[in-house]
This record gives sequence, C-alpha cells and structure tokens, in this order.
Amino acid sequence: MTHISDFIKHAEAMARIASEVAMRHFRGGLEIEFKSDESPVTQADRAVEAAVREYLAKHFPDHGIFGEEEGAKGVDQRHLWVIDPIDGTRSFLSSHPLFGFLLALLEDGLPRIGLVAMPALGEVFVGGPGGAALNGKAIATSGIQELKKAVLYVNEAEKILQDQPDAFVRLTHSGQTRRFGYDCYPHALLSAGFVDAVVDFDLKPYDFLPVAALVEAAGGVITDWSGRPLTLYSDGRVVAAATPELHHELLELLT
Amino acid sequence: MTHISDFIKHAEAMARIASEVAMRHFRGGLEIEFKSDESPVTQADRAVEAAVREYLAKHFPDHGIFGEEEGAKGVDQRHLWVIDPIDGTRSFLSSHPLFGFLLALLEDGLPRIGLVAMPALGEVFVGGPGGAALNGKAIATSGIQELKKAVLYVNEAEKILQDQPDAFVRLTHSGQTRRFGYDCYPHALLSAGFVDAVVDFDLKPYDFLPVAALVEAAGGVITDWSGRPLTLYSDGRVVAAATPELHHELLELLT
Repeated sequence: MTHISDFIKHAEAMARIASEVAMRHFRGGLEIEFKSDESPVTQADRAVEAAVREYLAKHFPDHGIFGEEEGAKGVDQRHLWVIDPIDGTRSFLSSHPLFGFLLALLEDGLPRIGLVAMPALGEVFVGGPGGAALNGKAIATSGIQELKKAVLYVNEAEKILQDQPDAFVRLTHSGQTRRFGYDCYPHALLSAGFVDAVVDFDLKPYDFLPVAALVEAAGGVITDWSGRPLTLYSDGRVVAAATPELHHELLELLT
Repeated sequence: MTHISDFIKHAEAMARIASEVAMRHFRGGLEIEFKSDESPVTQADRAVEAAVREYLAKHFPDHGIFGEEEGAKGVDQRHLWVIDPIDGTRSFLSSHPLFGFLLALLEDGLPRIGLVAMPALGEVFVGGPGGAALNGKAIATSGIQELKKAVLYVNEAEKILQDQPDAFVRLTHSGQTRRFGYDCYPHALLSAGFVDAVVDFDLKPYDFLPVAALVEAAGGVITDWSGRPLTLYSDGRVVAAATPELHHELLELLT
C-alpha cells in the first residue's frame, strides 16, 4: 500500500513539469491581452493544468482531481489532487516573477501534502507528514509568539479594506514589520521561517489547501478567520501563523 | 574625454560587486534582528555601499558620491554617483527576493545613467543616453496611453492612504490591472514594458534618481506629483508612466 509520503516525489515531478510549461509562457512578449476567454495567461493556465492532469492520468488514474481550469472529477475518491496551475495571475500578466504553481493532495478530505513552486525564482516548497523542505532542505516556521515582534504579511489588502474596514485598520497597526502581499508566496516564506504571519482573504480551495498542508507540515497553524480547519468548503478567509500563540492573537484581532 | 555612456560599463561592474555582497547576507539564517543600529541588514547595507565606494575611489576619485549609508561628499562635482545599497529593506529582512541595488550617475545635476539590479533574481536593468537594457537585451516602455488600459502599480499604499486619502481612493479605482507594490522593482518592470504606470510616495533621492534615469532611458516619463523633473531636491512623490499621455492622466488624477 502506498504511504502518503510516497506521493511527495510525484508532487515534485509535477512541479517540475508545471514550472517548465509556465516559463515557456512567461514574459512571452508584449502581446498580452486581458480578455478572459482566450488570453495568453489563460492559455498558460490551461497548458500547465493539462500537463499535470496528463501526469495524474498516467500514474493515478483512480484519484480525484480538482483544478482551477478544468474543474472537479472524482471528488469522492479517497485521494484528491487540488491544482492551481498559475497562482498570481495579475503578477504573471505584468511579467512579475511572484507567481506560483500550487498542488495539494487530500486524503479522506484532509490536506496532507502541499506544494508551492515559484517557477521564475527556481524555488519549490513542499510539505507532508515527514516535514517541510525548500529545494530539498528542511524548513520550519519561526518561533515568534507575539504579534508585536512578528513580520506580518497582509494579502489582498484592497479586498479586506473594502469588506472588513475595522479589521483592516487594526491590521495596519500590527506586527513589527508589515507588508502588503499577494498570493501564495508569503505563505511559502512563512513555512520557511522568513515571515511570521499571513492574513489572507477571498481565496479559493485551490489557493488555500496547498498552502495549508505546507504551513502545517512546517509547524505552523493555518485556519479560517474563525479558527476552523481549512477544507474544500471553507469561505476563503485565511490566517496563518508560525506558532499557536501568534495565531490566537491574530484571531482575536480579526474578530 | 569620457562620454557619459562610457560610464555604463562601470555601473554594471559595480552592480556585480554589490549583488555579490548582498547575496552573502541574504537569508543568512533566522538570527535577524530589527534594531536600527547594528542589525544584520544594516551590516549588509554598509558592506554593499563600502564595496561600491571602494570601486569609485579607485576609478573616479574626483567624482562626488551620495549614498544612503555614508552620506554625501563632493556633491558639487560635475559627476555625482547616487547609491542605494539595498532598496527594499523590509523585503530583505523578511528574506523576500524583491530587494534591489540602485545606482545613478548625475551629470551637471541631471540623472543620466540609472541602474536597478535585483541580486536575488539575477536581473540588471540599466539605462542611459543610448537606451535601456535588461541583462544586455534592449528594453522600452509600453505604448499604453490610457489609464483604463494600464497595468498600474501603487507603491507605499499605506502611506498614500494615510497622507492623501482622496488620491488613494481614486487610485484604487484606476487602471485595468492594479497592484500594490514596493520599492524599485515596479519601476524596473515599467522600463521593460511589463508595467505601464507606477505611483510612488515618500522616496529619497537615492530611491528615485536611479529609477528616473532608467525610466527616461526606456522612453517613459517620470516626475514628481506636480509634473516637475526629479532632482536631488524633489519631495519624494513620484509618478512614472510608459507614455506622456498616460503620465498626464495620472497627474490629473493625483491633484
């Protein structure tokens, strides 16, 4: 029987394939169009997801798949792969290197393996039951327990400002160093101990399930804004922290 | 007599030195402290600037120098080198790769050569009288003339929100794609035609003079928020655009 950690090498193989396909489209010229149907970024999204689905069809034909572009099939299977082919569409569109490829493996509904690849940076963060690693080197979250000492990233600041102005104002007075960020990368930096906390908003399951498994594998805590574990059915508000103490302090601030 | 463009190869040589020194300190462990006196990032800042000053002392002993760490000498010389050893201190502190090394050469008070190096990305953007290049390949700003079609970056959003809330609100409803950014990199992306406009706030001369020379060399327009050219004595509010038309539209929005 295959142990969950045996799937990690497959996740890494898919990350290599996805990165290669994505980089073929990155900075592909100035002809970028922003229409939502056949735009180059959508072509890139689709090409990456198709390549990953081809790998899965070959190696795990009976596993379920939930991808951003082609949707879900076999969601009731014991193993479900969750794919975001290009996380950070707006970065990709502006030729900004902070876009990622995200992959999670759920087992019985729980995110067990999470991978964040940054193709333009040459970085792959992966986590599972055996721990977390960045390009093969073990990583872990920091030991920071107090928000006033934390490096805090606030993702999707515009949306939080519009939807939760009170929480936003409190966030802009929190942390020792505070930055606005986007997408998966602050979570990846959290898993490597470089960032201590990330507040995120309006994410989809293919955004938050991969980073959830990664952050937990690295020793961090990641939930929705009410402190509930992240599942396929979470509302997309995410708070991630290096330690339980820091996570608790952020939950109190947000609610 | 040395022509201004002859200095470009020296600027590139200094970028190589600066990048090597910066990368020796980047992600140097989890022992980062945030005190302002002898913190590791300050050590990195100082080490980079010292290496660049050593190069200048050897090659151009009679040129002026204005650096973030060691201040100014010979500001009244015809040629003045302006140095920001690590632009993006907060990125550097959180082990985030979007920090830069900035260098400008002023001649008779005007920024003529501008260089942005991104050590962790392996990218060097440089511009002068002969045009602009990214890693040796010619670049130019985009042809976008209308704000509604523009990829817009708003740097230092927190400060603009606090100080100029009305302008901030207008900015958050502008552009086709809009992102919050920081530091030099959005300006470098503008010079390469990847981003169409950047609004910035509260910069120092060693932040804006290098990007000013780069953006102008690439065919863009960059001024303060009143439309005045950037000099050593500008107030640090910066608006950069790919075309004069787009720049004009942004100036109207900001004032």
